[in-house]
Amino acid sequence: MARTQGSHSDITGPRVRAAALRLFASQGYAAVSMRKIASEVGLQVGALYNYTADKQSLLFDLMNEHLQALLEARANASANGDPMDRLQEFTAFHIRYHEERPDEVFIAYMELRNLSPENFVVIEKLRDRYEGELEAILSDGVRAGVFDLAEPKVSARAIISMLNGVTTWYRRGGRLSLDEVETVYWNMVRKAVSR
Amino acid sequence: MARTQGSHSDITGPRVRAAALRLFASQGYAAVSMRKIASEVGLQVGALYNYTADKQSLLFDLMNEHLQALLEARANASANGDPMDRLQEFTAFHIRYHEERPDEVFIAYMELRNLSPENFVVIEKLRDRYEGELEAILSDGVRAGVFDLAEPKVSARAIISMLNGVTTWYRRGGRLSLDEVETVYWNMVRKAVSR
Repeated sequence: MARTQGSHSDITGPRVRAAALRLFASQGYAAVSMRKIASEVGLQVGALYNYTADKQSLLFDLMNEHLQALLEARANASANGDPMDRLQEFTAFHIRYHEERPDEVFIAYMELRNLSPENFVVIEKLRDRYEGELEAILSDGVRAGVFDLAEPKVSARAIISMLNGVTTWYRRGGRLSLDEVETVYWNMVRKAVSR
Repeated sequence: MARTQGSHSDITGPRVRAAALRLFASQGYAAVSMRKIASEVGLQVGALYNYTADKQSLLFDLMNEHLQALLEARANASANGDPMDRLQEFTAFHIRYHEERPDEVFIAYMELRNLSPENFVVIEKLRDRYEGELEAILSDGVRAGVFDLAEPKVSARAIISMLNGVTTWYRRGGRLSLDEVETVYWNMVRKAVSR
């Protein structure tokens, strides 16, 4: 087991993960060595193993923590209420939560190929749970007769892909505020699902 | 200059690019060495330089050829006619063209960060041209009073992100045929832009 207790681990552990996130996002998982991560946080490579078992564990931890935090943040959202209101809340939440975490979004999608098969299964389940929350809103709306969608599961994926796109082009301080972007996307989502 | 003439280059050049595409998509640009590409096509690494100046040129050539072929395939589409018909044609074209090229789509988005600044400018212009074709359809539809979109440029990006998502989850032989998937996405796109 990696030693994660001790006087410095509370500070150094998160610094190691932050450095790994930054390096994986900018250079790609396969191109980043444990030596490079160690040097980024000012550790000898041997000392890095006090904070993580190996590079695969670091990648898994980053994705796992990202998705766990995402699901936790969603857990506060109400599952009751009008499907249209819940969809609007989901849309705003997704755009804002991910806009603040472009590196996590990039890695969560792009480095899936580098997860070990066992780790992939865990991450895929968490992603399915998140996607399932949107699918439930869409299915509720279809049952209530306010949405018209033949395939709520496919539509949930389509909406998430569309909203993820914001992180690839939106830059703060540009022509449009995030409020304005949210309005454009919400109008499209709202109409796309409606009867 | 790289030597690209000669008896074998007509066969070997495309094989080099195909191997590079496969390796970049599965392992990431930064993780793939020229030696690995050479070994994949059964060449000595020195001989590889007969077909490409360096790894950066290979990446640029792959993206450039992909986008040039995409724009060429679009050039046959009619720019006249009803904006709704043109949008449907664009949606079907985009889904089908990219579904056949998941590696190219993955690289075109994910390896942008590894392009040299000069190469990035060229690739970005080609991407903008393609996005601009969809934006023109949307703007024409707004002017004709059939579409209701405050920001056609943002909406064009949103639609392209949504349609690109198909390549991340769709597998042939699954529950839905590509025709059915196309219908689900087209219904969403059609409604999303409509009044």
